[in-house]
Amino acid sequence: MQLGRLDHVGIAVTDLAAARALYEQVLGLEVTHEEVITEQGVHELLLRAGEAYVQLVAPLAPDSPVGKFLAKRGEGVHHVGYAVPDVAAALAELRAQEFEVIDPAPRVGSGGTTIAFLHPKSMQGVLVELVEEGTGHRG
Amino acid sequence: MQLGRLDHVGIAVTDLAAARALYEQVLGLEVTHEEVITEQGVHELLLRAGEAYVQLVAPLAPDSPVGKFLAKRGEGVHHVGYAVPDVAAALAELRAQEFEVIDPAPRVGSGGTTIAFLHPKSMQGVLVELVEEGTGHRG
Repeated sequence: MQLGRLDHVGIAVTDLAAARALYEQVLGLEVTHEEVITEQGVHELLLRAGEAYVQLVAPLAPDSPVGKFLAKRGEGVHHVGYAVPDVAAALAELRAQEFEVIDPAPRVGSGGTTIAFLHPKSMQGVLVELVEEGTGHRG
Repeated sequence: MQLGRLDHVGIAVTDLAAARALYEQVLGLEVTHEEVITEQGVHELLLRAGEAYVQLVAPLAPDSPVGKFLAKRGEGVHHVGYAVPDVAAALAELRAQEFEVIDPAPRVGSGGTTIAFLHPKSMQGVLVELVEEGTGHRG
């Protein structure tokens, strides 16, 4: 198993417009991708910071995973994403080592990526997303 | 103001040896720097993940900032670091915009860096570290 580059930091926010203004106008990062992912219940913005992204995620509904996170913890870092060449292979290897995973099989992420989440219990308290680039454009 | 690349994700851990084994042996990242920073009360490891780092920080004492964080929140993401060319200039600009800062002036970080922390209140719940590279080696 080989984690690749740090792909993104996912930050849960209640007010996406305010968060966008902070990162874009005050801190000078560029929004390179925007997507509403109904299946995950989030409205997402990606801002480029070098070869990685700041990913701002706002919930579409209070009972979505990000909505529940915000109710419990408030705004802040929600997860950390790492690039891997093959999410299915990485998942198989980690499951063989008895990692707790949230997604037993890869699924579609934003920008045409293939993703899977690993449970914080197996990652020292950090919700981790594995990201395999697809043919989509994330900027 | 222009944030540079995402420099690192700081993860607070109680058992540094276990966290190191996870990231190094299971996930294949390379430890490029290790430092005990008495002033900040942490034992730190940097592992390279592309052009960014995973920074594992364990407290030297329970009443250190990271020790208190662990007591309150448990293991998990502690802060996010971004590169800037000039921490003093960035701090001055943000303070002029009434950002709440933890460090009113730049201070010495690990690996010869110059750093300053911004308060989560001004950063949508995220503790943010500005990092200016120095002449030291972080790998």
